[in-house]
Amino acid sequence: MKRPLILISNDDGYKAKGINFLIEVLAPIADILVMAPTNGRSGMGCAITSKDPVYYSLVEEEQGITIFKCTGTPVDCIKLALHEFPERTPDIIIGGVNHGDNSGVNVHYSGTMGIVIEGCMKGIPSIGFSLDNHSPEADFEPLRPYILQVVNQVLEHSLPIGTCLNVNFPATPIYEGIKICRMAQGEWTQEWERHSHPRGGDYYWLVGSFCMRDEHPEDADRTNMTDGYVAITPIQIDMTDYRMIEEMKAEWSWES
Amino acid sequence: MKRPLILISNDDGYKAKGINFLIEVLAPIADILVMAPTNGRSGMGCAITSKDPVYYSLVEEEQGITIFKCTGTPVDCIKLALHEFPERTPDIIIGGVNHGDNSGVNVHYSGTMGIVIEGCMKGIPSIGFSLDNHSPEADFEPLRPYILQVVNQVLEHSLPIGTCLNVNFPATPIYEGIKICRMAQGEWTQEWERHSHPRGGDYYWLVGSFCMRDEHPEDADRTNMTDGYVAITPIQIDMTDYRMIEEMKAEWSWES
Repeated sequence: MKRPLILISNDDGYKAKGINFLIEVLAPIADILVMAPTNGRSGMGCAITSKDPVYYSLVEEEQGITIFKCTGTPVDCIKLALHEFPERTPDIIIGGVNHGDNSGVNVHYSGTMGIVIEGCMKGIPSIGFSLDNHSPEADFEPLRPYILQVVNQVLEHSLPIGTCLNVNFPATPIYEGIKICRMAQGEWTQEWERHSHPRGGDYYWLVGSFCMRDEHPEDADRTNMTDGYVAITPIQIDMTDYRMIEEMKAEWSWES
Repeated sequence: MKRPLILISNDDGYKAKGINFLIEVLAPIADILVMAPTNGRSGMGCAITSKDPVYYSLVEEEQGITIFKCTGTPVDCIKLALHEFPERTPDIIIGGVNHGDNSGVNVHYSGTMGIVIEGCMKGIPSIGFSLDNHSPEADFEPLRPYILQVVNQVLEHSLPIGTCLNVNFPATPIYEGIKICRMAQGEWTQEWERHSHPRGGDYYWLVGSFCMRDEHPEDADRTNMTDGYVAITPIQIDMTDYRMIEEMKAEWSWES
């Protein structure tokens, strides 16, 4: 069997420990193409760069592993890699391993999941891996067998068009197993820390704590992570609320 | 009846014609609070500012209209407005009117829809308005009766928790009416334009054209806009693919 090609990016920058761990884990089973941000671009969601030019350059190339850095957002990285190397379509696109949790509605803010959503829109099976530990020196070793399992399952089963996977690992080094979950619903609260500028006026740092408000918390990714499980949440690109279409057609009144 | 409070933001900056048109249309029926980016922040999706401080300042205040500008992303603007003015929760949050189409999967890239998704996550009925015309001098006047209808319908019916509206207007000045739609599926192609730097090397501009790949195009927002309709697409925050959860539980094999 021909070795698969895996396109990898992240939002912590190409030097981050998480992405280099991912490359090391997957290099034995696949050819690896990396296009990752030059610097950290956390919290970029699906942002694209529309007003500035984007640059990329080769970092290193060895047998089966080619690494580029790119000045764009995580989504730009995927778009640019697919544009520049059309001769071989990746079998899988992976974002991560992210330094920090991307469970629940954090998918909307996550640059890692931006990569995955972009890959999915391009019709390529895509997976995001995130570890609930922000430390640059976090220990990723416990993730190894789970990453290999998930990637091998996706290589075997593929994924439906329009569906991608969000895989989140709790910070605990020993896992209870894997749980297939739903996206935890909730919101961030107490989100700003005000500081005074030495020359007058205030400025604000985005902080906050996540407050879960979920009607079925037992099935939610965040809950299962708290219980020590690796949480896999299938995510769909189509955000249409179909039930609401019917309700609006039946109950809302429109004048033309 | 007490006048409702509407929180407005956009991704084209507080000076844009679209947001000022929206303020003018809604000021007769509501108190208006604006927190909008200082400059254009198109294509920011749900991006947040995590590595820099955020500033805001008053632009103007008159009877029933208060306008602030903010250095953050569109999502930051909503988070900061809700944090700084907690004494009165907005009845509705609105993004727009955007200079440019946000139909279909463009929701993922759209700063305007970032505003709406953020408002929705905060449990407040939220609406995005976009006009399929990028010109700074676009004529927004034909939108007036439709904006008022949609806002009045949301004030009357509210919206379910976790659901928001994406309203897109075709560029044509006369509309056939309103259609309740699904999010058009598809992808951007031919996305990069390569230029040569005068001092060597290449740089890339993000361009591209949208290619629809939708199994039910007749119900899709993009299609109905092409037919001259105002397209309203209900969008849900929960991106879980529930069908895939069942499939993965039944057919995928996991070792623990």
